[in-house]
Amino acid sequence: MRYDALIFDVFGTVVDWRTGVAREAERFFVPRGLDVDPLAFADAWRDEYQPAMERVRSGGRGYVPLDDLHYENLERVLERFEIGYIFDDPARAGLNRAWERLPPWPDVRKGLARLKEEYLIAPCSNGSIALMARLARFAGLPWDAILGADVAKDYKPKPEVYLASARALRLPPERVLMVACHNDDLAAARAAGLPCAYFPRPMERGTGEAIPPAEDWEIVAEDLADLAERLRR
Amino acid sequence: MRYDALIFDVFGTVVDWRTGVAREAERFFVPRGLDVDPLAFADAWRDEYQPAMERVRSGGRGYVPLDDLHYENLERVLERFEIGYIFDDPARAGLNRAWERLPPWPDVRKGLARLKEEYLIAPCSNGSIALMARLARFAGLPWDAILGADVAKDYKPKPEVYLASARALRLPPERVLMVACHNDDLAAARAAGLPCAYFPRPMERGTGEAIPPAEDWEIVAEDLADLAERLRR
Repeated sequence: MRYDALIFDVFGTVVDWRTGVAREAERFFVPRGLDVDPLAFADAWRDEYQPAMERVRSGGRGYVPLDDLHYENLERVLERFEIGYIFDDPARAGLNRAWERLPPWPDVRKGLARLKEEYLIAPCSNGSIALMARLARFAGLPWDAILGADVAKDYKPKPEVYLASARALRLPPERVLMVACHNDDLAAARAAGLPCAYFPRPMERGTGEAIPPAEDWEIVAEDLADLAERLRR
Repeated sequence: MRYDALIFDVFGTVVDWRTGVAREAERFFVPRGLDVDPLAFADAWRDEYQPAMERVRSGGRGYVPLDDLHYENLERVLERFEIGYIFDDPARAGLNRAWERLPPWPDVRKGLARLKEEYLIAPCSNGSIALMARLARFAGLPWDAILGADVAKDYKPKPEVYLASARALRLPPERVLMVACHNDDLAAARAAGLPCAYFPRPMERGTGEAIPPAEDWEIVAEDLADLAERLRR
């Protein structure tokens, strides 16, 4: 038994945020007669993600849950697309819940069910407990607990987010495998003392380009289902 | 829809801690040839519970997870039963995990599964995330998230534990139903602004005595399965 728990990046690694946000946005655009490319809208919204968290990470702002950052970012992107005047507050709040309604990649449910038989599994996402719990219901993700930013009151890739997640399970970092399709996320987890598993998600940005592993991660797999097979005991 | 989420006391309300701890203790006593009443041992261990938390609640000590308090209490109880010298550190750590291996009351799995169809469900226990996550696996409790003391970094009945749990779900307290078989737990939740559901657990202390509701709780049920029936939409 090398590991006792697996913790997961979620946006990109577990769920397809781009297709999911675009699909939800379309549900708001079509009845309003808006001719906006929903995928371009999803990309623009996501592009606000890191700068918004960076203010918290740098200490320029106290911790606020990602739901609030998403909402502020949404307001900015609606203005940029010049459609802000069409969305009242309830519509904005409804659209902001797009992040709770993202589809899992096709291998995810099978892979997580398999892993859960032998390991504790939990998200280590920048999403809040509220967001992750509702997303888990929507996408059928059988987490044992919700860890990540809300537990640490800070955002990845700050080391405390990985460490607080391991501590919440009462496990030393070296027994907790961090799983992500993003090399930078794993580099931060490794620096904090966690072993790492990588697989690419070529369709995360819709390009089909599989980004190669940037370091000699403890495990490199094809996808989450393949990772589950490799971790069979 | 009067409520969006239900949060639960766990020790007593969801699981039978007394029988469970006694059964686990017996697994340690029998091979060591110890003639100790495991139910008396479970009761003595539990009697240390409130005083240990009170030091944290009163500010006399910073927050430490319940697993650590259980361990310290275990050491005290082993001495009181004059069997401390028989238990080395690994045996103590193993026995301390009794709290992760408690049976659910017979109505629990059906009741929680039914409630989860329509509501977010989470423990609001003084147990840590680690303890609650492992107990959920053992007892088959399909929580959407683990809330309670670890999220608030304080112990019930401090109001912050109920409020932090509602906040973690991004719900106003009045939309979160607190469920417990203990009137004092509910009184604290009500004072914090949460609606309350009560049912007795006559066998919690092994007496068979059903403690009546002490206030006009929003819901009074027979047990968890009955509560689930009453909350059908």
